[in-house]
Amino acid sequence: MTIRVAIAGARGRMGQEAVHTIMKNTEMELVAVLDYKDIGKTLEDTNLFPPSYGAPIFTDLTELHKKTSPDVLVDLTSPESVYKHTKEALALNIRPVVGTTGFTDEELEELTAISKESGLGCIIAPNFAVGAVLMMKFAEQAAKYLPDIEIIEMHHDQKLDAPSGTALKTANLIAAVRPAHVQGHPKEKETFPGARGADYEGMRIHSVRLPGLVAHQQVLLGGEGQLLTIRHDSFNRGSFMSGIVLSVKTVMNLKELVYGLEHIID
Amino acid sequence: MTIRVAIAGARGRMGQEAVHTIMKNTEMELVAVLDYKDIGKTLEDTNLFPPSYGAPIFTDLTELHKKTSPDVLVDLTSPESVYKHTKEALALNIRPVVGTTGFTDEELEELTAISKESGLGCIIAPNFAVGAVLMMKFAEQAAKYLPDIEIIEMHHDQKLDAPSGTALKTANLIAAVRPAHVQGHPKEKETFPGARGADYEGMRIHSVRLPGLVAHQQVLLGGEGQLLTIRHDSFNRGSFMSGIVLSVKTVMNLKELVYGLEHIID
Amino acid sequence: MTIRVAIAGARGRMGQEAVHTIMKNTEMELVAVLDYKDIGKTLEDTNLFPPSYGAPIFTDLTELHKKTSPDVLVDLTSPESVYKHTKEALALNIRPVVGTTGFTDEELEELTAISKESGLGCIIAPNFAVGAVLMMKFAEQAAKYLPDIEIIEMHHDQKLDAPSGTALKTANLIAAVRPAHVQGHPKEKETFPGARGADYEGMRIHSVRLPGLVAHQQVLLGGEGQLLTIRHDSFNRGSFMSGIVLSVKTVMNLKELVYGLEHIID
Amino acid sequence: MTIRVAIAGARGRMGQEAVHTIMKNTEMELVAVLDYKDIGKTLEDTNLFPPSYGAPIFTDLTELHKKTSPDVLVDLTSPESVYKHTKEALALNIRPVVGTTGFTDEELEELTAISKESGLGCIIAPNFAVGAVLMMKFAEQAAKYLPDIEIIEMHHDQKLDAPSGTALKTANLIAAVRPAHVQGHPKEKETFPGARGADYEGMRIHSVRLPGLVAHQQVLLGGEGQLLTIRHDSFNRGSFMSGIVLSVKTVMNLKELVYGLEHIID
Repeated sequence: MTIRVAIAGARGRMGQEAVHTIMKNTEMELVAVLDYKDIGKTLEDTNLFPPSYGAPIFTDLTELHKKTSPDVLVDLTSPESVYKHTKEALALNIRPVVGTTGFTDEELEELTAISKESGLGCIIAPNFAVGAVLMMKFAEQAAKYLPDIEIIEMHHDQKLDAPSGTALKTANLIAAVRPAHVQGHPKEKETFPGARGADYEGMRIHSVRLPGLVAHQQVLLGGEGQLLTIRHDSFNRGSFMSGIVLSVKTVMNLKELVYGLEHIID
Repeated sequence: MTIRVAIAGARGRMGQEAVHTIMKNTEMELVAVLDYKDIGKTLEDTNLFPPSYGAPIFTDLTELHKKTSPDVLVDLTSPESVYKHTKEALALNIRPVVGTTGFTDEELEELTAISKESGLGCIIAPNFAVGAVLMMKFAEQAAKYLPDIEIIEMHHDQKLDAPSGTALKTANLIAAVRPAHVQGHPKEKETFPGARGADYEGMRIHSVRLPGLVAHQQVLLGGEGQLLTIRHDSFNRGSFMSGIVLSVKTVMNLKELVYGLEHIID
Repeated sequence: MTIRVAIAGARGRMGQEAVHTIMKNTEMELVAVLDYKDIGKTLEDTNLFPPSYGAPIFTDLTELHKKTSPDVLVDLTSPESVYKHTKEALALNIRPVVGTTGFTDEELEELTAISKESGLGCIIAPNFAVGAVLMMKFAEQAAKYLPDIEIIEMHHDQKLDAPSGTALKTANLIAAVRPAHVQGHPKEKETFPGARGADYEGMRIHSVRLPGLVAHQQVLLGGEGQLLTIRHDSFNRGSFMSGIVLSVKTVMNLKELVYGLEHIID
Repeated sequence: MTIRVAIAGARGRMGQEAVHTIMKNTEMELVAVLDYKDIGKTLEDTNLFPPSYGAPIFTDLTELHKKTSPDVLVDLTSPESVYKHTKEALALNIRPVVGTTGFTDEELEELTAISKESGLGCIIAPNFAVGAVLMMKFAEQAAKYLPDIEIIEMHHDQKLDAPSGTALKTANLIAAVRPAHVQGHPKEKETFPGARGADYEGMRIHSVRLPGLVAHQQVLLGGEGQLLTIRHDSFNRGSFMSGIVLSVKTVMNLKELVYGLEHIID
């Protein structure tokens, strides 16, 4: 059975990729687009897509639902609108797959309750890159056996914050299963400050910023005579598409809200 | 409670490392050594160990057991003797931890039955490097989500066989969960034969042999816009020690025979 | 002094990047574009570039030269037209910087002679990625000291030929300075054919093809107790821009034709 | 013609390796050993070497020279004795190859003058690992074209100082050819201090310390759309042997003192 998919945020860079991905997927059908303008037109009319892209544009989800009955709403819009969209979708019996963060704890609790009550699946994922999620999962699992760990994350030099969100999330997951301990020689000395990186409960995080780089991270786990390295390279936005496809398929079989791709990957 | 450990094969290179490892471990005590000669002497007398290494040497396991009552027998001897040792140990209520392969299927079945009947733990592990076992496990898990896979294994140039046993085992584990499919462009062409590596149910395996290298393997899993790499570097024999320590601790709580470290790692 | 640059092939994907690169470079000015249509219009009129891109389009190089007097012609067109363009440019006292291959030996000889006679610089480069050219240079230099070498090149799975052109060029450069010798153990055995890769005068080349990958190569040089790795990752077409900029600057000071970026990098 | 070699410091761990290396090399002969005791005995008598190692031990270099006329003295002793040895060797017409640092500037100047005057070759090398020296050389060369650089060095967790000496030397060499500039986004912010590593004239250096690691360094040079990585892995002391062999051969043709392996590698 083909899954009927609607997309919100189809004009954005991530949204455009998602449109192409759904269009190419033989198990899915793109039935409609939720947008803030161009009601009555189709994707083709936006000049952002090829002629064959005939999904109609709606500005109102209820109307969209009445005309096209989607099974799933993939929402790639801004943090401002996702809460409203998600709540409306659940009320209309459409399963939300949401790729932006920015929910408050209260909103998440409310949506979780609604989802559970109606028995309707809902997936909210801060990171749709399946490989990155696997990297975090594996690092967490391996930390039990190889508890001496350093993280090297590497990004383009226009990134403002260091360490990256993914590096902090990884360290956070590991810290939950690994007793904190000082790494390195107890008397080690930095002759140049910062050489040993940021300290996260004893783990060290190193942030490389260079032109040319995209988004890369490696988790290094050392033990006597050996090194285990788990590395993820994200070369472009396409890395998020496999997570979207996986979520659309999985949400059909869920009966409640799941937060984080790691919980639908086993 | 301290675990009382006996070692068979203490003179070998792996055995010597294991002796040091047990001696340094505060949760274990090295109570005896099983050897083919020097009965009545101690490890110190062999000139292979420092003066403080006083574990007595026995040539007969029954005698060893009567005098030193070990909880565990770590067996690092040759394939010829492990079957006999393991069977004897189980009969004497000593838990075997065996680090050599070379059992026949019949022997394994027999030992499994004895172990189960007596409710006594027994671990047989072809590979004690925890990091290598984790690499295989993770590759297998990730293959469900990123099914396009190539393996690069790298060893010193005195290695005779290519691909390595670990590479083949990894490919075998992956193949069991991944539907075989042709990778690469259907019309791809090798202008120099062998460039695309060995074909293992569609996966490609590449064997690098260079002086200086020790034992390294990476599993590359590619997906749209991303690459997940799981890499293990074994720099020396010490990489096996963490697996031996883990096995000695774990075998105390087992009630049957376990084959392969992957089954005691979760 | 600002270098006056004309570009042929500005509509192509590489050409568009080059236009942006020259426009952003403060030491250069984009004075004209050589094209096959739209004479009299400007880059802006093509709808491929932003409004401020006012370089006029010409279909005839003599006319272009008369109106805009460029110092350099960057030619990113097809093999069919580069010979004609380059010869004309040299006759008009414009220094060619050519980024496509496809010259015959006779054509190269003729252009070399013309360039020398007129004392006018000309650069023809099959590969404009400075990092890739450096990788090849370094591999060649290092081969004298660490002559056991394997090459791993990794590309997206739509690539048809294996090994890649860059891998073959690298092996070829190394082979010229390294006496051929059999690598690996003399009795090594492939239990799966192809495991040891392609044989290039004793060196081994391994070609990885996976979705997600772009264009990557590493040269591994092993010696007793050590490994030297020289790796180049090309993440997108932007990697060629530094070579174009370097060539435009360098060609101003040349008095003859140079083939290959490696000869203007020291 | 076979090169006649004497070794000082043969009992040390590096010295023992060097003895084996010279013994195995068909272009060299180990004619004597300079030591602080056991005069009149041979290497074999020390119980550190196999029976066939018959090189005689001397405690006085003049005596050693009179009896065995070495062409080269490989000195792997401590900083305290190398100055005295080197000066004596030059006076006796023996070419010194010295592998320890610890000379004062005055001593180096004096030895340089003596070497020049007598026209006798002398090599003093703080680092004999050919691959590490090549890495530094290549990083320096590449910095002209790809001036955005970060260094990641990785060592075992018993190392006291961070960054490593090799990392600092590499940064120092690069800094000499690269105008200092701030890397990364001008407004970048460390949410955890140290994340961006140590700052060396704008370059960033990251020091990883983990059990299992030996001595590894990578220099990352980023440019638009690309990354060039030059990496050296030192797996054991054997990595220094190729530099010793190269130095013994090269010193025969030198007419003056050379400081640093990089000056005999081209």
